[in-house]
Amino acid sequence: MTEDRGPAKKPPMRDVLAEAAFALFMERGFERTTVDDIVASAGVGRRSFFRYFPSKEDAVFPDHERCLADMTAFLEAAGEGDPVEAVCDAARLVLRMYAEKPEFSVQRYGLTREVPGLRTYELSVVRRYERTMAGYLERRWAGAPDAALRAEVIAASVVAAHNNGLRSWLRSGGRGDAGAEVDRALELVRAVWGSAAERPPAPAAEDEVIVMIAPKGAPMWRVVQRVEAALDEERGTTER
Amino acid sequence: MTEDRGPAKKPPMRDVLAEAAFALFMERGFERTTVDDIVASAGVGRRSFFRYFPSKEDAVFPDHERCLADMTAFLEAAGEGDPVEAVCDAARLVLRMYAEKPEFSVQRYGLTREVPGLRTYELSVVRRYERTMAGYLERRWAGAPDAALRAEVIAASVVAAHNNGLRSWLRSGGRGDAGAEVDRALELVRAVWGSAAERPPAPAAEDEVIVMIAPKGAPMWRVVQRVEAALDEERGTTER
Repeated sequence: MTEDRGPAKKPPMRDVLAEAAFALFMERGFERTTVDDIVASAGVGRRSFFRYFPSKEDAVFPDHERCLADMTAFLEAAGEGDPVEAVCDAARLVLRMYAEKPEFSVQRYGLTREVPGLRTYELSVVRRYERTMAGYLERRWAGAPDAALRAEVIAASVVAAHNNGLRSWLRSGGRGDAGAEVDRALELVRAVWGSAAERPPAPAAEDEVIVMIAPKGAPMWRVVQRVEAALDEERGTTER
Repeated sequence: MTEDRGPAKKPPMRDVLAEAAFALFMERGFERTTVDDIVASAGVGRRSFFRYFPSKEDAVFPDHERCLADMTAFLEAAGEGDPVEAVCDAARLVLRMYAEKPEFSVQRYGLTREVPGLRTYELSVVRRYERTMAGYLERRWAGAPDAALRAEVIAASVVAAHNNGLRSWLRSGGRGDAGAEVDRALELVRAVWGSAAERPPAPAAEDEVIVMIAPKGAPMWRVVQRVEAALDEERGTTER
């Protein structure tokens, strides 16, 4: 999609349209606002709208296409590190998009909860992020047993964790640290799945072992956190 | 929703309509089939259709509402066992619905992949299953730290694993054992999260410990599987 950013002083037409559309959606409601209303408010022709947005729904979420493209590029450029860390970082790109415009994001969250068509639209977008992440993980694990299964389960976990953190922040009215909420949520996924990925084989010989002692009643995710912590500690002292 | 099952010999009107609709969708395509075509084929009036189905999309998935109700009832009746096991079993209710009608399920899978509106519809339904499971988990863990976060991440994992197994089966043309595919997929989730839930505190005193030895390079999910296996073994010998 090409974007006519126009001369330096004028805001891009695409932004003008998205802003005009959103103002009307908030004022009159999404259903009661027509594309004709939007183009009249923005002072352009009807065809201009469809040049930038395939549908009215797309104008509510003007940044997702860019963010999806950014995520794809980010993952294509990701190095040889832990792939689960990479998809967690990829999810943070989505958060950043929301956090850049707190007021808009919070208002849109309210609008989306009221309009079933927008919720459905959002589900489709979320699904595209999830598939982008799963595709990356599967490529990284190509040939490994259950690569597709693990990729899909982990991508779904990352998306769910991200959305939990994002929603907390949106519900708080966009106050507080969105990044901290999402980091905390993603940490749960990383603790469980982070090394499920492919711990770089170099540092430890195959027959080196970890010995872990934990209370029998401990929940499994705590056990995992302890193993992880122990491994990190070991690495810190012996390999750095 | 009340269902007029009619006299014993005649198939229920709802089924007649769904079958007529599906036959037309396969023959002419989803978009090109109107509700008028469907009611003409079924030999009933237009209002009968909307009495049973809010939209054309709903007629493609006639069993999800019942399955969602079954899942809710199943989880309400679930006992004090591992909540993660309970949601895995709840997911199997969805599988059973697909596996009951292999030919229909496989044909519909093809149709759904061709019609974006049906894919979106399906995403919404899947989301409702996910929320049903997450709601149950959150209630079971009420008051525990991160209850909502864990509930959402695990419900998303269960759904992703279930769908991976279901899709394998659908892609194979509905041949083979759908249950086995899904069991294998859910096992990955159960191994990692099953005890993350709330291992019943009774059997082991707080200060009893498990000692686990694993290769340092082992992926975390293998470590978890071993811890799980060790715990199960212990329980088998000491508590049963």
